[in-house]
Amino acid sequence: MAESSRLNPAIWPANASQWEKSGELTIGGIKSSQLVADFGTPAFILDEADFRARAIKFRDAMHKFFGENAHVYYASKAFTSIATSKWLAADGLSIDVCTGGELAVALAAKFPPSRIEVHGNNKSLEEIEEAIKVGVRFIVADSLIELDRINSIAGKLGKRQSILLRLTPGISAHTHESIATAHEDVKFGFSIASGAAMLAAVTAINAANIKLEGVHCHIGSQIFDDASFILAIERLVKFIADLKKSHGIELDHLDFGGGFGISYVDGDDPMDVELVLEKIHHALVTQCAKFEINIPAIAIEPGRAIVGPSMVTLYQIGTVKDVVLEDGKTRTYISVDGGMSDNIRPSLYGAQYSAVLANRISSAPLTSSRLVGKHCETGDIIIRDIALPSDLVPGDVLAIPATGAYGRSLASNYNHILRPPVIAVRDGAAKIIIRREKISDLLALEEG
Amino acid sequence: MAESSRLNPAIWPANASQWEKSGELTIGGIKSSQLVADFGTPAFILDEADFRARAIKFRDAMHKFFGENAHVYYASKAFTSIATSKWLAADGLSIDVCTGGELAVALAAKFPPSRIEVHGNNKSLEEIEEAIKVGVRFIVADSLIELDRINSIAGKLGKRQSILLRLTPGISAHTHESIATAHEDVKFGFSIASGAAMLAAVTAINAANIKLEGVHCHIGSQIFDDASFILAIERLVKFIADLKKSHGIELDHLDFGGGFGISYVDGDDPMDVELVLEKIHHALVTQCAKFEINIPAIAIEPGRAIVGPSMVTLYQIGTVKDVVLEDGKTRTYISVDGGMSDNIRPSLYGAQYSAVLANRISSAPLTSSRLVGKHCETGDIIIRDIALPSDLVPGDVLAIPATGAYGRSLASNYNHILRPPVIAVRDGAAKIIIRREKISDLLALEEG
Repeated sequence: MAESSRLNPAIWPANASQWEKSGELTIGGIKSSQLVADFGTPAFILDEADFRARAIKFRDAMHKFFGENAHVYYASKAFTSIATSKWLAADGLSIDVCTGGELAVALAAKFPPSRIEVHGNNKSLEEIEEAIKVGVRFIVADSLIELDRINSIAGKLGKRQSILLRLTPGISAHTHESIATAHEDVKFGFSIASGAAMLAAVTAINAANIKLEGVHCHIGSQIFDDASFILAIERLVKFIADLKKSHGIELDHLDFGGGFGISYVDGDDPMDVELVLEKIHHALVTQCAKFEINIPAIAIEPGRAIVGPSMVTLYQIGTVKDVVLEDGKTRTYISVDGGMSDNIRPSLYGAQYSAVLANRISSAPLTSSRLVGKHCETGDIIIRDIALPSDLVPGDVLAIPATGAYGRSLASNYNHILRPPVIAVRDGAAKIIIRREKISDLLALEEG
Repeated sequence: MAESSRLNPAIWPANASQWEKSGELTIGGIKSSQLVADFGTPAFILDEADFRARAIKFRDAMHKFFGENAHVYYASKAFTSIATSKWLAADGLSIDVCTGGELAVALAAKFPPSRIEVHGNNKSLEEIEEAIKVGVRFIVADSLIELDRINSIAGKLGKRQSILLRLTPGISAHTHESIATAHEDVKFGFSIASGAAMLAAVTAINAANIKLEGVHCHIGSQIFDDASFILAIERLVKFIADLKKSHGIELDHLDFGGGFGISYVDGDDPMDVELVLEKIHHALVTQCAKFEINIPAIAIEPGRAIVGPSMVTLYQIGTVKDVVLEDGKTRTYISVDGGMSDNIRPSLYGAQYSAVLANRISSAPLTSSRLVGKHCETGDIIIRDIALPSDLVPGDVLAIPATGAYGRSLASNYNHILRPPVIAVRDGAAKIIIRREKISDLLALEEG
């Protein structure tokens, strides 16, 4: 029987492996020691083939169930770069952006504006103008104030802008509060229940320079449960039917956002994409038949579910320290050369991660450990409780999987620590797609 | 009777005021409308005179109680820049840095290395070497591994490096867990109780290229209670006495770190610096007499207590939206042009802030509001619950006080939002000390 990789495939990129015999973690065909030697640590290692395969899987599943009019908008906020935007363009996906900055990255990658959707609860006038000028497919409108702005700016530019309306269908997906959306008490969208959504639809229909094409919702993040998605679809279809009934206008686009959960640690059990989309398709068909509307073009916005599992962070251990706890037990503190500046999710959301020793296989017994960063802050903890080999020493390399989403994108320069590079690996070749910051980058902002 | 400013002086910089008659918030003698016109929003406005007065107050109080050998190390991690470092240098303070990046800022300001102290639980070899080369006053050693590194690098450079030992005196100051330090189960320092501290002291004494000069502790952040400080002092003095008794060596430096709380909202009641230092002085004298040691040179490390209240964030309102809650009440969502990228403390620590309408006086009734940012995240909340005038409109300017500490220093480019500038104001003149980021700064890291 062939030896199998020690890594849990639910958490690691497809092209990462660690075998008993060779000992080292390899990603995209490159040994971690080689990556460390060439690019230093901390570093985000992105498995290009895995990223693209996940994107293509979403694309194909959407086409399978919802036909050629279905679209997958990759959510830039999870992680964006020129390189990944080029891959998405080549692989036939679309992109959603929330700001002028995210739009600038997509445009720098020559991403077709006809496949860009613009989000945000507070788009600036400049952001709206830029979006209309370059010809984005949709602006997702979030407030009456914004409808007025879009109408007026489009008029000034002699254009008619296609929009979706962001609706709040009143669903509280069971997830961490700060990443749950679409229950009523949120900053985003127009509430269906309160009548705000219908008012916004009528306003948009009456605006000369706006073409209202559909509705949108986003019910949360890191969702493991398809029931919330199905409920959202049902409410959005009913809204489309209500609008048709009351105003004779049938919207033909429905975008139900992102939120597909991923595995961070053993035991996490995210939904299979195909299975969920099949169920959603069934709910959609049933609901559209019930309310006598045509099946709209469907779009989704996965970000984390594509980039999250495709990236791994490599750190080097700097210090190892045993601390005696009050109960007399010992905890080993393993300090690495990054921390809350490159991964704030543990501090921010109590997020959990796993880690493996990457540069060698250890047969030492496991010991109760805490993985911490190098910031001057007690809360700078990457993994609060983890069993790690008791023979870890400075210079050893640790790899943390599933750091692709909201790692680099939320990174800071706290303590003037330089943000890590993102290195794409594929078939034995590595390429910097975002370079490591330098002290001179930070000092460039100083006018002291 | 003279009209008084509407601002609570406990929360606002000394040179900020808002009068009924003139209507506008002014800081450092400049109207907020002028600041917005000249520098845009969001922007951090730093009251230079207030910053320097707070720094000087610490310096003078320390000298008053502990004599000329007392030192105030400003904690760079709260906020650092070349400009503020120059002020601190001119005003006779010292600086503590945690990384090579923070050291680089101090050195770029030509800060005298003899007044720099280097912290960190996981200093890199390069950071240690740089610190020793430039001749910093103290490296605060945090682990046995690090003692070995300091000794070896100092030896290689033909130097003998002065150090303090970071001790954990086993005190849990009553504050938010992630900013509480010095109870035993933390990454920092050597535990006194476990014997690790004594072992470290003996190791340092026996290291040829290390000069052990004293001890250090840092018991937490945003502390409102002098009892924890006094207990820490007592334990450190006892440790010095124990070392003297067992090894005949009397350390003559004691640095009890930072942690002085500040007011963020009405009702916060931080300790008066002079009063606390007086109490600590009394405890120190008593304890030193009791254990028969000389009174050591004392140092402290305030960061937040200097820069926190001296800075104000100006935002412009982009959208205003009423949301009907489940109980039928209405909440007004006020979206501004920044958010968790420039102030992550509410999301990270549940931190509370206040806000005032800055560009005019409103006599409209107050309404239950939530101040949110422009990020694509439900948790992007700056102030969860605040009563604000019901007539706020897009374009109005809101000012959030007490954002100087851990605002800009923890800022990210989440959603590719550009980090705000820091503008120093004084006597009617404004000066950019950190400029606003540009899209080109972000794209400069792309190698896609």
